[in-house]
Amino acid sequence: MTDPCFMDTPDDLRRYTLSELTGLCSALRTYLIDHVSAHGGHFSSSLGVVELTVALHYVFDTPEDKIVWDVGHQAYAHKLLTGRGPLFHTNRLLDGISGFPCRSESDFDAFGTGHSSTSLSAVLGMACAARLQGNNTRKHIAVIGDGAMTAGQAFEALNNAGYENADMLVILNDNNMSIDANTGALQHYLSELTTGKQYNNLKSRIKKMLSPDDATGPAVMLYKLEKILKGGLLRYSNLFEALSIRYFGPIDGHDLKKLTRILEKLKHIPGPKLLHCVTEKGRGFAPAMEHKAQWHATSAFDKHTGIRTGTGNATTFQEVFGNTLIELAGNNPRIVAISPAMLSGSALSRMKREMPDRVFDTGITEQHAVTFAAGLATDGLLPFCTIYSTFLQRAYDQVIHDVALQQLDVVFCIDRAGVVGPDGPTHHGAFDIAYLRCIPGITGAAPMDLEDLRNLLFTVQAGKSMGPFAIRYPKAAGNGNTLPPGFRELECGKGRRIRSGKDIAILSLGAVGQYVQEACAVLEKEHLDIAHYDLRFFKPLDDVLLHGVSRQFSTLVTIEDGCINGGVGSAVLEFIAEHGYQVRVKRLGLPDTFATQGTQQQLHALYGYDQQAIITLVRSLANDIHRHKPADEHQAPGFTGNITLV
Amino acid sequence: MTDPCFMDTPDDLRRYTLSELTGLCSALRTYLIDHVSAHGGHFSSSLGVVELTVALHYVFDTPEDKIVWDVGHQAYAHKLLTGRGPLFHTNRLLDGISGFPCRSESDFDAFGTGHSSTSLSAVLGMACAARLQGNNTRKHIAVIGDGAMTAGQAFEALNNAGYENADMLVILNDNNMSIDANTGALQHYLSELTTGKQYNNLKSRIKKMLSPDDATGPAVMLYKLEKILKGGLLRYSNLFEALSIRYFGPIDGHDLKKLTRILEKLKHIPGPKLLHCVTEKGRGFAPAMEHKAQWHATSAFDKHTGIRTGTGNATTFQEVFGNTLIELAGNNPRIVAISPAMLSGSALSRMKREMPDRVFDTGITEQHAVTFAAGLATDGLLPFCTIYSTFLQRAYDQVIHDVALQQLDVVFCIDRAGVVGPDGPTHHGAFDIAYLRCIPGITGAAPMDLEDLRNLLFTVQAGKSMGPFAIRYPKAAGNGNTLPPGFRELECGKGRRIRSGKDIAILSLGAVGQYVQEACAVLEKEHLDIAHYDLRFFKPLDDVLLHGVSRQFSTLVTIEDGCINGGVGSAVLEFIAEHGYQVRVKRLGLPDTFATQGTQQQLHALYGYDQQAIITLVRSLANDIHRHKPADEHQAPGFTGNITLV
Repeated sequence: MTDPCFMDTPDDLRRYTLSELTGLCSALRTYLIDHVSAHGGHFSSSLGVVELTVALHYVFDTPEDKIVWDVGHQAYAHKLLTGRGPLFHTNRLLDGISGFPCRSESDFDAFGTGHSSTSLSAVLGMACAARLQGNNTRKHIAVIGDGAMTAGQAFEALNNAGYENADMLVILNDNNMSIDANTGALQHYLSELTTGKQYNNLKSRIKKMLSPDDATGPAVMLYKLEKILKGGLLRYSNLFEALSIRYFGPIDGHDLKKLTRILEKLKHIPGPKLLHCVTEKGRGFAPAMEHKAQWHATSAFDKHTGIRTGTGNATTFQEVFGNTLIELAGNNPRIVAISPAMLSGSALSRMKREMPDRVFDTGITEQHAVTFAAGLATDGLLPFCTIYSTFLQRAYDQVIHDVALQQLDVVFCIDRAGVVGPDGPTHHGAFDIAYLRCIPGITGAAPMDLEDLRNLLFTVQAGKSMGPFAIRYPKAAGNGNTLPPGFRELECGKGRRIRSGKDIAILSLGAVGQYVQEACAVLEKEHLDIAHYDLRFFKPLDDVLLHGVSRQFSTLVTIEDGCINGGVGSAVLEFIAEHGYQVRVKRLGLPDTFATQGTQQQLHALYGYDQQAIITLVRSLANDIHRHKPADEHQAPGFTGNITLV
Repeated sequence: MTDPCFMDTPDDLRRYTLSELTGLCSALRTYLIDHVSAHGGHFSSSLGVVELTVALHYVFDTPEDKIVWDVGHQAYAHKLLTGRGPLFHTNRLLDGISGFPCRSESDFDAFGTGHSSTSLSAVLGMACAARLQGNNTRKHIAVIGDGAMTAGQAFEALNNAGYENADMLVILNDNNMSIDANTGALQHYLSELTTGKQYNNLKSRIKKMLSPDDATGPAVMLYKLEKILKGGLLRYSNLFEALSIRYFGPIDGHDLKKLTRILEKLKHIPGPKLLHCVTEKGRGFAPAMEHKAQWHATSAFDKHTGIRTGTGNATTFQEVFGNTLIELAGNNPRIVAISPAMLSGSALSRMKREMPDRVFDTGITEQHAVTFAAGLATDGLLPFCTIYSTFLQRAYDQVIHDVALQQLDVVFCIDRAGVVGPDGPTHHGAFDIAYLRCIPGITGAAPMDLEDLRNLLFTVQAGKSMGPFAIRYPKAAGNGNTLPPGFRELECGKGRRIRSGKDIAILSLGAVGQYVQEACAVLEKEHLDIAHYDLRFFKPLDDVLLHGVSRQFSTLVTIEDGCINGGVGSAVLEFIAEHGYQVRVKRLGLPDTFATQGTQQQLHALYGYDQQAIITLVRSLANDIHRHKPADEHQAPGFTGNITLV
């Protein structure tokens, strides 16, 4: 399977004429549209940087020169030009190539990305390493979007780069978007730069002021003035120049000729410099150019009409979260919502439209978002700070230092908890239970189903003050049950018995409890009488429940969609040790490895915590305790889950 | 005990004349010098903001108006003016007032601080809350140093503030210092602003250009030109203005008259604005003005000579770290060191002097520092990334996403692990074992003594590739033993038996193992035969050691200087559960609460993991297992530890 845009290395491309390069760009776009329309994936970012990708590989000597793609959503064309074409049909699949740049995949992927705004730091490290090792020829390029530029880490790196004065080139890929439309003062500033209003205004005002006097004198003066302004004041009139980064541009990031020409020049300019490229996200696919936020990532679609094919209709945790929050906020003026640049992903777009003053999109700024929430909370508001599990890692210190230590009422709505599927190891929400439950004074919950999520959201705002409260939920649909109207207040730190039994007790946390229900139904037919408890809270633990099961059962199984090192299973072990029970405990969840990519079901099976894994484990444990005859695995009915993961 | 500068509230101060205010400033300085010279503490930051503190309370209606002191080192004068004078002799002591602003301590402390660069986010939150609640009169002020301004979170907040356009005032307290001298491009930029070179140059060049022509015409032109430049281009010529923050200054932050006058004016200017104040750290105490980095925090000293009194001479973990790294780097060109603005605290100043190219001070930028280290590591260098435990929380995502996931060779030297003493809850290194050991592929170690630290540092650079490797050590002196010359390579993931025994085994991690040694010596006299193992690694665990003790002993005790929720004791529980051993385990360490302030010994005792606590626990456990007669606590010899904590 080959395609005109597949290349083993970009060596060939470097011998192309401009018109051949232009043809290559068309071929890349055609392939991207064909591929993503058939398989889904990150879409419009890659379409927007086709010319930039071709120009960079044309001008620079990759992989000796280093290109780091910030976030990495936009690196599909880069992958096709660097040997990954023949494997691209496996993109984002189990055992396939990664949807992000990945060092172990290719020498051309100089640095693995996935989370935003790391590229400048990484590239500065490479540039300093080269200098220290006497390599004065290698070039170091970071390609970063205007959205990613809002994150503090990018600023930290610019500030350090201006000081270190190392040889690096920042390509600011300005498309006016994060995943959603960009917010923030930087955004406004960049659009001022690109429209050139500031400088053009000044120029025309000076011209006007100096005419219609003497024809030669003022012309000379004007010339001198311009020179001064450009060389003197403008040297500092730019945000980047203020940080000692030389600024070039803005230029049209789709103009191959200009791009290659200026990159060629920049190659010979030492020190840290930034090229401001204006590109269009989704370029070359009309629906994506029109509705930018909707086409950042997409499921499969009809490439002629842009209509999505085969998307699920089941209600998701995300939808229930977004709708419930609006419902609650209507009655509770304390409620506000915060999202660091993930309004649509977190299902907050509707609330932003309906209650614009009460939803804050802070930009890609997890650290700021959490302390900002703390600030709002000091004044009696109740912020629902909505952050993906993997990105909350960015604000870990702020959760501890600004919220938990001050016992402020901030609700952390932790989306994408557990494995997320095809985004893979950079994006799984694997660690939040472990990294949160060691924080004093925090309450941590995980709903087993959609109704539970609604009730948890209700509970956290119904009482007076709950302190910091985390609710983690997966990127998944519910079990399809109809949600009852109204709400039920839940008791904090209390689990519930889903099913009584006498042989073994399974303690589940979160939506994986549905696997347990399914497994128990199968095991029942084998006369294994399994009890099932939904812990609901990973902190505090339900002491009464745990004393009960520790006395009643000799064997417990814990299951969670997160790492088992330090997870809720370990919390159960701590309880048992604390109270001196002698109970055998088996813990299911993510093992001590970075989970790979694949569908969520594939990953749950691979890491041994889907319904089949539960069935297998329970049979083996039951066998051990000699209460039942060994079950015959070959006779066990096959089982397919009825929960839908999206 | 009262003092002319103690005030219950700043109400009185608001009726003072300028000369009375000036007198108050002198009284504050006298008290600060008297107090810190007698007791030690954070010193020169508070001296530098005396006038600023007085002016802010004079102009603003605190506590209704909100002042947030970034980091909080500089808030001593604020505390003296707001009711904490009579308690100030308890500053930083067990049960005393906090060395940092603290919401639970006073209504005047609008937001608790300690870690850097949170103030802008918090103040923006308060300002947005006020607006949402229809409060248009309240003012919100953040006081932030130029050092703290280099952290990404400050930039995130500025970017968001410019967008939200909320009513807040940022006081940029520019003293050219973090704890050490500031680095970074921002620093250079601010000094350009304060010297005014940029604008003055431009002005004089324009003047020169336009004379000696017609006397009136050019004057008018000049006037117009200036107006244009100021109003038009200068609008964006400033880093802060570029982010839609109105910039005022720079002004002399020690000129009370000017300060009060401009603050009074700024009170009536809506929206986000920044006042650039130039101050001198240590102002009013000559030695502190001369040697700025040495006087950020200090032990007690002679206030006339500036000579420190009674500082310890015992060698510390810090000194051994700094000296060993120089020794190793001399032989291993791969070694580089990175510190986010903590060169002296981390004992890297000497290496910076001796090998300037190989030590990177990145500014207050933990996120960037870690990814920068990852970038250096991609090129074969071996970065020793040295960050205090509590500050590494800031870079948690980067440790996971940029280093561990890519299995890069970065050594995390985690200073100030465990309780740190008088800095209290914001600064304890309580969580690192829990938050690191859930990360796949990381190796984590904690030396029991100085020799162990040397050998660990040697080990990590002796072999080929170790992947991410964390070494945590306390702010403490060693046991006074003479260090042997040379190094010994240690086996990764292997602990050691310190002492054999048969009744109970104690598994210690890190320097608290010295408490265990002392306890065992006492218990031996009571005929309790206690085994002691030094785990040395919290990840991976020593399987052979753990299988051995799980088989040999019915009771284990674990002890660590960190939170027991999810700590190494929990890792031992996981091992035991995994392998189905039936062993009783008691875990000692920090309980599930934010540890308070006090000396390290006080805190170890308070939280039950000093030598006396070990003795008490072991006696009780031994009693339980009926192997020995109950020990009589009243007859037990008193014990004082011989390790010195600094």
